[in-house]
Parts: sequence; structure tokens; C-alpha cells
Amino acid sequence: MRLIIVDNQTEKEQEFYPGDHLLDVLLQSSSGIHTPCGGRGTCGKCRVEILGIGHVLACQTILSTELIDRAARPLTVILPGTVRAQISTEGMLPDISLRPSVYKGMAVLAEPTIDDQRPDDERFEAATGLTIPFGLLPNLPLVLRRTDFQPSYYGLISQNGKPGRVLRFISADAPNPLGLAVDIGTTTLAAYLYDLETGQRLAADSALNPQSGYGADVISRIDRATESAEQREALRASIGRAIVDLAKNLLRDGAVGIGKSLVLDDIVHYVLTGNTTMLHLLAGLPPEAIARAPFIPVSRRLQTLTAAELGLPVAPDALCQLLPSIASYVGADITAGILACGLLDQKPETGSLLIDIGTNGELVAVGPHGAVACSTAAGPAFEGANIRCGIGGVQGAIDAVRWDGKILSYTLIGGLGHGADRQLARGICGSGLVAAVASLLDCGLIESTGRITDQSDQLPSELQERIITISGQPAIVLAPAAASANGEPIVLTQKDIRELQNAKAAIAAGITLLMSKAGLAAENVGQVHIAGGFGNYLDVQHAFRIGLLPEELRNRTRTVGNTAGMGAVLCLLNTERMEQARAVVDQVDYFELSGEKEFTELYVNAMMFPENE
Amino acid sequence: MRLIIVDNQTEKEQEFYPGDHLLDVLLQSSSGIHTPCGGRGTCGKCRVEILGIGHVLACQTILSTELIDRAARPLTVILPGTVRAQISTEGMLPDISLRPSVYKGMAVLAEPTIDDQRPDDERFEAATGLTIPFGLLPNLPLVLRRTDFQPSYYGLISQNGKPGRVLRFISADAPNPLGLAVDIGTTTLAAYLYDLETGQRLAADSALNPQSGYGADVISRIDRATESAEQREALRASIGRAIVDLAKNLLRDGAVGIGKSLVLDDIVHYVLTGNTTMLHLLAGLPPEAIARAPFIPVSRRLQTLTAAELGLPVAPDALCQLLPSIASYVGADITAGILACGLLDQKPETGSLLIDIGTNGELVAVGPHGAVACSTAAGPAFEGANIRCGIGGVQGAIDAVRWDGKILSYTLIGGLGHGADRQLARGICGSGLVAAVASLLDCGLIESTGRITDQSDQLPSELQERIITISGQPAIVLAPAAASANGEPIVLTQKDIRELQNAKAAIAAGITLLMSKAGLAAENVGQVHIAGGFGNYLDVQHAFRIGLLPEELRNRTRTVGNTAGMGAVLCLLNTERMEQARAVVDQVDYFELSGEKEFTELYVNAMMFPENE
Repeated sequence: MRLIIVDNQTEKEQEFYPGDHLLDVLLQSSSGIHTPCGGRGTCGKCRVEILGIGHVLACQTILSTELIDRAARPLTVILPGTVRAQISTEGMLPDISLRPSVYKGMAVLAEPTIDDQRPDDERFEAATGLTIPFGLLPNLPLVLRRTDFQPSYYGLISQNGKPGRVLRFISADAPNPLGLAVDIGTTTLAAYLYDLETGQRLAADSALNPQSGYGADVISRIDRATESAEQREALRASIGRAIVDLAKNLLRDGAVGIGKSLVLDDIVHYVLTGNTTMLHLLAGLPPEAIARAPFIPVSRRLQTLTAAELGLPVAPDALCQLLPSIASYVGADITAGILACGLLDQKPETGSLLIDIGTNGELVAVGPHGAVACSTAAGPAFEGANIRCGIGGVQGAIDAVRWDGKILSYTLIGGLGHGADRQLARGICGSGLVAAVASLLDCGLIESTGRITDQSDQLPSELQERIITISGQPAIVLAPAAASANGEPIVLTQKDIRELQNAKAAIAAGITLLMSKAGLAAENVGQVHIAGGFGNYLDVQHAFRIGLLPEELRNRTRTVGNTAGMGAVLCLLNTERMEQARAVVDQVDYFELSGEKEFTELYVNAMMFPENE
Repeated sequence: MRLIIVDNQTEKEQEFYPGDHLLDVLLQSSSGIHTPCGGRGTCGKCRVEILGIGHVLACQTILSTELIDRAARPLTVILPGTVRAQISTEGMLPDISLRPSVYKGMAVLAEPTIDDQRPDDERFEAATGLTIPFGLLPNLPLVLRRTDFQPSYYGLISQNGKPGRVLRFISADAPNPLGLAVDIGTTTLAAYLYDLETGQRLAADSALNPQSGYGADVISRIDRATESAEQREALRASIGRAIVDLAKNLLRDGAVGIGKSLVLDDIVHYVLTGNTTMLHLLAGLPPEAIARAPFIPVSRRLQTLTAAELGLPVAPDALCQLLPSIASYVGADITAGILACGLLDQKPETGSLLIDIGTNGELVAVGPHGAVACSTAAGPAFEGANIRCGIGGVQGAIDAVRWDGKILSYTLIGGLGHGADRQLARGICGSGLVAAVASLLDCGLIESTGRITDQSDQLPSELQERIITISGQPAIVLAPAAASANGEPIVLTQKDIRELQNAKAAIAAGITLLMSKAGLAAENVGQVHIAGGFGNYLDVQHAFRIGLLPEELRNRTRTVGNTAGMGAVLCLLNTERMEQARAVVDQVDYFELSGEKEFTELYVNAMMFPENE
């Protein structure tokens, strides 16, 4: 039988026999799985997820027929550090030195005498440099005297890097303080649990944003929050609960990894990022003015609060920091991305770009004239919306279309399968859409104007037959009815192509304008970072093929995954990065594309697809 | 009939007939009462208190027989600005410029446009210099847009005198912010209500500290608070309620004065002072270690909190500042006294002393070597405790004893009265004790050793007859049984005199030692301030007569009333004074008398009374 092994977006197949040890099968596939305990089931390092069953220790698991029956088909194992298709927590982390905001300490104080009558607070503060907030003073005398004046505590680093205040008094054998970085996307939450003493990542996972029930995009969320204070509170509470649920899952996962139990109270630092609307909703701030011109947020500041102040239902003394946003439509997720990509760390003569493509395309350019950012109303085409057969990045979505010069083929998320395990196509996701148009341009079914060709008689018959008419409009069949889950062919309509043209033109024009604002010529661009959930699955070569990205930037462009999450992690692990984040808003000039005259002309020019090479 | 008119510690009598207008009677007595409204009952300036009845407007009150029946006897009217005997809110205020911590403001902001997309908070902050705390952000968009971007607010001055933060958004026609200074004495609360925009005192009053039910002195309060967290909380809550009750009374009184209603929410700044134990109890801090060697407070810092943080049941956003203490037994009341007397404002070559006498005598000396403070365990003799006929400063207490060379006479609090209104003596209060011993030294009934003379046969028979024997010990009759409320003579026993000797010796020795620590010779002392409830009623000449104060300081000594309350008022009205208060703790060296070798010798030397001149 065959086992599919998913290891950070890549899939392998491995033969096995029912009754085999899962660990053995994984080791045969050279999965790089570690078993420091020698397979005794104690170290937890071989913890994997079997789709349909859940997390198991590979060394303790036999691939019995019973297990195979219970599992999802095809039998799939997801390795640790890996995430499920299309919900990505991964991204590239730059090298980072550990300087957490919260640390564990023990002070050794001189005991008071008649010649040293300093009050308890001054005695502690002189020894540690930490102030004691008023709320902790009532317990201070007991804490000092029970520990023979050797209290243990979680301490907080202040803004200038010096000791700040006590966060909590703890017992001498208390666990290491934990931190959670959370990226609150409109659709998806991604969270990362760290040990703040060792810098070790204990777990990472993602979950759907439960606010999706209140509307798919930020505007519908804003509308809902504006209906009443109760609705705003409902949205605030729902995101809070989702963060807690995700945190508890990560604590459970992390506990398996380190072999001891972890509880919510152990998390003492939360770094929260997301777009400006999501952070307004999290903080209970009215987002109404974000939605209407002139698009004004209540605040874009770095907020440093206790969980009690934020109203997050976790340890009330936990430090919660909401990363700063740049503008209503260039949020803290972009601030975090700027940090994660080191955009502002480079020499001024080296330019770089950050391109985060989702419902909106947020763009940042750094060049000789400084750092500039804008948001393009790309439309939701890249997320599969407003596309006839568009769906999200789910199992069964066409995620790639290939033209090898003879045959047009596609792949599905979860694989095509074979025989009894054959999977049917359910639709086309954003990266599939870009890949499809790129391949259809290559094979000639789509002309560079975007028109579905009316000269298909000059094409091979395999291609000719793909052109059909739906409601009087031409369309191209990607998967025939027989290969489709609902029995209808999966098609790309002329209108779908126009949607994509609009979306890609907005981004391409935005990039061109932004580079000009930053004083950045294409030849001086050092690195182009493609970020965001969609960016992560995008084939960069397809992006160039359809003109989403200017041709001149090819060879300097890489996808960088969830830079928002990675930036939040940086701020969690290093206070200096947090100070960088605080300063980003003053370093980046936001401009409103709708206020720019050149934009319309650039946009029209960018509608065309590049000619065949 | 006769009306007793009490006008700031002095009493007058005025004849009247039942049916007279009270205002007319008061005007006949030249009481200096003002009636700007001409007696129409609208200005409220003639508001007085009739004992047993309460506050009335004199212009609207007829002294009917019915009223006279309901009132306490003798019929007594207390004029505004006056306080009842022995509960003093008064003290001398130095000249003060008004620089309150909380002020009323209105900002005029530029309305947002597509070219000026600053967030609401940054827009406001740029216009006012005030930051907006997180808790006020949710209301900010509505506040700005409802006021056409011209919001009104109470603003807070920061520690460095610059704009700090918004305390509250208000309507444009909101009242002036009010402030309350409160001195929390072990026995008595004194409170002062001010308009922070005008600096006008609206009302002042005092009340008993309800914690008295938990014990009369700080040690019994500490014992009670140490029993359990519940007891500590009960003590905390009781003082909070007492402050609120007092505040409400002052608001009612103040509203009459200005002719509009005032509510608790209008008070936005509370400055709270008191001894270290009282402030611990107010703040809910365990005072246990204050009571036992080495006498360690939890904190002596200036605490700047919101009412919500402090747990004071007033407007939750009100600013509450607890003045800093100097040591466990030199509290924030002394810090306030140092400010009120300007002790640290003087040139270093001019020395001065602050002497606050109560259960303990707290002493501060400023001289060429700096400022030093100590606390003497004076014992409660000055408060009438441990004295056979000792009582507090209440109606009927002997408060002065006079020897005119022929006759020994006394006065009572509330007056001796005449005929049917004759008042009987109920005991002797602290100032009466000092006066009695001074006069008995003068007339020869007490020798300079403190012994009741056994050579009374050389004295006039009027004096000889005053020596009686009680339980085998000599005693001196101050008021005969016929003049005593309980039919027993009011006496001073040999033991009472020894108690007083111990108490005065402790203070006198403390003063001598303190002056030496401060490098202060008696001839260089500019001013000696006698403060505190007891100090206010003390006849300074009597204090010198018994050697409570060193003879060399005569002519430079004055009583200054409730300097704790006055210092709190200074801090309420002027942020610079608050900063001075913050610094006092670092400028004053506390030392523990029990640790000083010379103290015992000085103490023994100070036991004797000065010889007759």
C-alpha cells in the first residue's frame, strides 16, 4: 500500500505493508524525523498527524488494517512543523538573537534590619531594577518572607531594553515563560507557541477565523460591527475565544513535544498582528471609519496592554502587544512582514519590494527615496471569489495547470489519486487560476488581450475541444464533467479571465507606481518578497507569465510564506524587533492609490498579458 | 434666651427672643456673615449649622420654640468655615499658585480628508499633546464626530508638567473639575473640596475614622488587619466608604455655596494623606511588618492610580494619589506637613522644626546637615489616654487650667455656662493636661521633679485643700465633685503626672537629638511649627512651661493646625508641590530613636520640669 507523507508543502509517497511500524515507514522515506528516545515513546519528537485520525507518536503506531480503515483516503501523514494545505503557518525566519520581553528571574535580597528599614518594594527594586505594579504590592510582604527574601518572578523588559516591571511572582520551580505570536487574518488565524527562555518553537498551528460567520471580507465585518455595540462586542469576543482555543491546542501539542503539561497561565506574552480591521475588532475599537472615505482608523499605534485590559480571556496579567499598523488598508500584518523580510535593514542603495496578495494587494517598496506603501483593490479573484468555478484552497481544488507543448494537465490539492482512490476536481483555487491562465496563454487558447481565441482551428484538436459556450459566452474546460465532483465540467470563462486581468493589472500598476515613488529602478531591486497565504502557493513563474509581476523582476523574486506570523514571532522573541515595529509606522509613507493620477494609465497598460516568448 | 455662636474656635453669646429671625440674631452679634442675595435664600452664603438640627440657611430660619425644643442645649450655631471643637480641618496655607493636575480643555482638530488620513488618536494627540489611554479609544470616533472634531475633555498634567493624558471626554458644558484632599488620621478624617479651575475652596469638613471600631490606635488596627485577608478588606472598604460619605457631604455643602448641584463624578482628583498605617489600610496593603521590629512598610512611594485601581468607590477614572511616607512611623501626613510649612524651601543656614504631637510625636528638623526625622513613642497621654480622668477633646472636657496667683480656675470645651445652662466637667483632655500641669507647677502644687508637693502647708489653703489621696496615692482636684458630671471630682494623680513626664521627655529628648543630627543650634532655628490635632489646641506657653519644648525655642514657635490636610491641598492645587512631595522621601533621613545611644541619657535629663522662674 502507499502512504502519502506531507513534509512542509511537499508530498512524497512510500510503499508499506499493513502491520508495518509507522516510524519505520517514515524512516525509509528519509523524512528526517528524529527519535532521540530511540523509539521508546518518551521524547515525543516523532509526533505526526494521520489525516482522519489525529496526532500519534510514529514510534508507537502500527499501520494496522483497522487504522487504515479509520483514516482518510489516501492515507496521509503530516510531519511535525508542517501545516495542512492552504492554511499556512510557515514562513522564513531571519536569524534572530533571543531577547524576549518576559524573562524568569530570582532575586536575592538583604533581609531587613533596624539599620536597613527600606520598604519591601524599594528593597526588591534596588536588587532587580524592576518596579512592582500596585496590583502586586498586596502580596509582596508574603512573597518576600515565604521565600526568605529570595523571590522568583517573571520580569518585563522596558521599552529601552532595561528592566521594566514585575509581571508576576512565581514559585522557584515555575515553568519557563511561554509566548504566543498570533496572525489574525480575515480568513485564518495562525499562531506560534514559543518557550521564551530557550527560544524553542513548541508548536504552530492555524484555525479558521470564526468571524467568517459574520462576513467573508473586512467590509462585511465592519458593517456588522457598526450595527450595534453588541455586535462589535460579539465580534471582539469571538476572536478572543478563537485565540484561546488555538492557544490550548498549541499547549497540548507543545506539551507532547517536551513531555510535560503546559497550561494557559504559562503564556505570559502575546504578540498579535493582523490587518487594521482585524486588530480593531480584537481591541473592541469601532472600525466604521475604516470602511468609508477618507478611511480613518481609530488608532494604528503599538498597543501594550495586559490581557485584562484587552479583554482577552487568558491570564489577566499576560502582556498583550498589538503590532502597529501603517494605514487603514496597510495593516500590522504588513508591519510584521516588513520586519520579517528585513526591508528596512538594508542599505539605502539596495531596493526591495514586499508584495502581499490577498483580497487586497498590499505593496511596500524601499528605495533611495525611502519606504512607501500602498494597497490595491485587487479584488478577491486571487482567493477564488467572483470566479465561476472558484473555490478556496481546499481538498480537490485545481492548484496547478500545466501545458507541456502537447497535453494540458492539472493537479489537485490532495493529489489526483489512482483507481479507487481517484480524486475528483471540485473547482479552481487562486494559484490554480494563475497557473491555468499562464498555461492557456502558452498553448494559445487565450490571446494576449485576454480574449479566448476564436482561431482555435489552428490549435491541436485536444485544445480545440476545450472551448465550449456557456450562456452565450466562450469558456475553456479545465476538467471534464467525468473528472468533476459535481458532474459539471470545471471551466474558465471569458469573464473569469477579465476578473483576473483586473486584479493583476491593479497589482502590477501599483508595483510600478510604488517603485517610482521609492525612486527605485528595476535593476536596483535586490529582492522581491511575495508574501501572504496566496503568495505562498503561487508559482512565481506563472505570476510573471501573466504579468502580475513586471518581467524585469524575474530572478529576484521569492515567496516567503506567512511573513505576518514570522514578524510577530520576531517581536515575541526580541524586544529590539518590537521597537523596530513601533518605528515602522514613522518610516513608511503610505499613499492612497485612488489619489494618484498616473495610476489609471498604468492600470490600463497593465491589463494586457505579456506576448508569447 | 441665649444663643451660642461658634466662629472658628471662638464662642460668643447673643440674646434673642423666640420667634426672632436667626439671620438677624447673627447680624446683631457682628458675626461677619454675608448675605449677597439680601436674605432671599438664593445665595446660600448664610448657611450655618444648628447643633442637633443640622444645616439651615440663617435667612430662612426662625428661632421658634419648636426649633429650640428640637435643638441641642445650649442652643448653638456654628458659622460657615468653622469646625467643631477638637476636630480641626484648619491650618495655615502658604501662598500658592494654581497648577492643578487635572484641567478642562477643548481641542479644535482638522477634519480628516483623503490627504490627511491620520488616525483619530494621532489627530487628537497632535492638537493637544495628550495621549489617549486605551480604555477611552472605543469612544473616540463618536466623540470626535459628534463634536465636529472639537472634543472637550478633562486633561491630566504629566509628572514633568507637560500635557499627560486624557482623563475623561466630557460635554462642552460640563462643570469645572473638582478635587478632594483628604487627611486620613487614625481617629479623624479631614477633607477639603476644591474647584480645580478657580482654586476656590468649596467646602471642608471632618468625620470620625470609622476604623475606630476596629481599635483606637494603629497597632490594634494592624493586628486586626493581620487576622485575615477579609479583615484587611473590611478595613480597606470602611475607609473608602467614609471618604465617599465625607465627599458627598462636602459636595452638598459646596453646592449651596455656588448655587448649583455637584455630584461625586465631578471629583476627578483625590489627594490622600495620612500616617503610613492608614495609607496601607486604604490601599489594601498588609501592614503587619510595620508593627514589629524592624518596622518595614510594604511601600512608602507616591502612588498614582485610578480610583478603579485603588478600589475607591467613586468615579472609576478619577485620579487618586497617595502621598509618599518617609518611614513606618513618619507618614505621608508628615510629608504633607513638611510641604505645608515650607520646611525644605528655606535657605540651608536657616533651620526649622516641625513637631506633630499625637499618640506618637513625629519630629522633623532641617539644618545645615540636612533634613532628619524621627518618631518618639510619646505614648497616648496627650490624647487623654492612660490618664485617670483623661478624655478626648469633647464637650465638657477641661481644656485649660489657669493660676492667676490667687485662684486656680479651669475652662471647659463648650464653655462653663451659667445658671441653668451651667456645664459640668466630664474629664480632662490633652491640652487641658498640659495646661493643668503648667499651672500646678506655677502654683507650687507640683514640684519640678514631678512630685505632688508634700509641703502644701506652705501654700494657700485653697490649694492645700486640693490635695487628696486616692488609693493611697496623692492626687490634685481640678474640679470638685459638685462641678463634675459624674459626681466624682476631676483629679490629676501622681501617676498621671508621671505619664505626662514620660511623654514630654520623649519628645523633648527627640527634639534635642534631632537638632544635633541636623547640625542645628537653637539660636539658628528660624521657626518651630507645632502641628497636628493636639498641637492645634496646645497653649504653646504651657508647652514651654512643662519643658515639652526646649526653652531656647520660645518666641519662634507657633501652632500651625492641620498641616497634613494643608499639604494635601497644596499637592491637589499645584503639581509642582506634588513633585516636591515625591522628592521629600529622598531628602529626609529617617532615624530610629531606639537605635540611638544618646537618646536614653537625653530622655532621663528631660524628665524633670523646668524650675519656677
